[in-house]
Amino acid sequence: MTPIATVHSCFGEKFGVPRQPLLADASRAAIELLPPLNTPDAVAGLEQNTHLWVIFQFHQAAGEWSAKVRPPRLGGNKKLGVLATRSPFRPNNIGLSVVRLLEVRLKPKVELIVGGADLVDGTPVLDIKPYIPYADAVEEAQSAFADAAPQMLPVFIPEDIMQKAHAFKDDWDTDLPRLIEQLLGQDPKPAYQKPDPQRIYGMQLCGFNLRWRYTESGIEVVALDP
Amino acid sequence: MTPIATVHSCFGEKFGVPRQPLLADASRAAIELLPPLNTPDAVAGLEQNTHLWVIFQFHQAAGEWSAKVRPPRLGGNKKLGVLATRSPFRPNNIGLSVVRLLEVRLKPKVELIVGGADLVDGTPVLDIKPYIPYADAVEEAQSAFADAAPQMLPVFIPEDIMQKAHAFKDDWDTDLPRLIEQLLGQDPKPAYQKPDPQRIYGMQLCGFNLRWRYTESGIEVVALDP
Repeated sequence: MTPIATVHSCFGEKFGVPRQPLLADASRAAIELLPPLNTPDAVAGLEQNTHLWVIFQFHQAAGEWSAKVRPPRLGGNKKLGVLATRSPFRPNNIGLSVVRLLEVRLKPKVELIVGGADLVDGTPVLDIKPYIPYADAVEEAQSAFADAAPQMLPVFIPEDIMQKAHAFKDDWDTDLPRLIEQLLGQDPKPAYQKPDPQRIYGMQLCGFNLRWRYTESGIEVVALDP
Repeated sequence: MTPIATVHSCFGEKFGVPRQPLLADASRAAIELLPPLNTPDAVAGLEQNTHLWVIFQFHQAAGEWSAKVRPPRLGGNKKLGVLATRSPFRPNNIGLSVVRLLEVRLKPKVELIVGGADLVDGTPVLDIKPYIPYADAVEEAQSAFADAAPQMLPVFIPEDIMQKAHAFKDDWDTDLPRLIEQLLGQDPKPAYQKPDPQRIYGMQLCGFNLRWRYTESGIEVVALDP
């Protein structure tokens, strides 16, 4: 199986990437089509869809898996079968994400600008399909494993850091302040870890080193450094 | 990439298989887990989900694809980019289907009994994931390519054939009369083909040779032979 496209995103590393797509709808990514798919023909009509499925490889998790895993959603202390979870550590390392299609660019490269993606920069893409609401949006579906979106934490961004974030510009119109709020609000650290108020956490985001700490009431951003 | 499971289904050939999963919710299939996934551990907790994603290989369509395709939904005379369709003829031949999980069997084999599947018998499965409603059921999604389920045709099954269908029993409690109605109701022939009232169409279904013809008002089953 050969990748048909590569993801370019603000997420330089696995840590901090949204746990599900659409949890952070301010995220932006470009999916660059590779030969022989880098033709306007291959994406003709794609713009008729508001959402797409991206089937991709968890390339940073290749080869490592076990039959039972401890999903962070369940606090990291309860085990489930790997097929009963969305763990990236799975037999074929295949990931599945729905993203919002914002733009189909044909020049200078054939690329899809998407929102809400939970994809690490450099992710190899195996397939892209239109999201077909009548077939894919199963209203009666229920999952006791993950029945509701995680509760969002309040995120405090000091004024000087907010200004830096507002000044950020890229080709995809990323709203960096909102993205920071969404990413940290979903609490990137494992749920079973009790936050140590002394500890500074960090992630690579849009070329910055974003750092934060846990307070009594939520999360406080402490740095956004190049 | 190695298949983790194999599909056992009533669909002996590609022709007639539902165009999307859940269009024919009477269909039944068993997804048999293969080593090393054929352990109760790998599916522990899976029963907490009503629906699953099955990521599979279109093994009957391997290697054949072009950048533009003519989807049957559009009458077969309009071209779209392959990535803008769900055509089985695609670069990596990866298919994606949501199915209803009916039962997790651990003996004598580890297998998942599922409903609504659009999977040909023998389909190799690459991954199975829980359907997570808050992440996967995108209510605001729109697709101009396929905005509504196809209109169903009325299907007439003569009494003697109905009795044969009712008598059918398998390990998965397939309701064969209802399955026939659902499969033929979605009109398996290409939309651009004007039905010839003289012509008898056929498909392999649950070990039978099912044959039908087009009438003024819909579809009439003419045979269900072993």
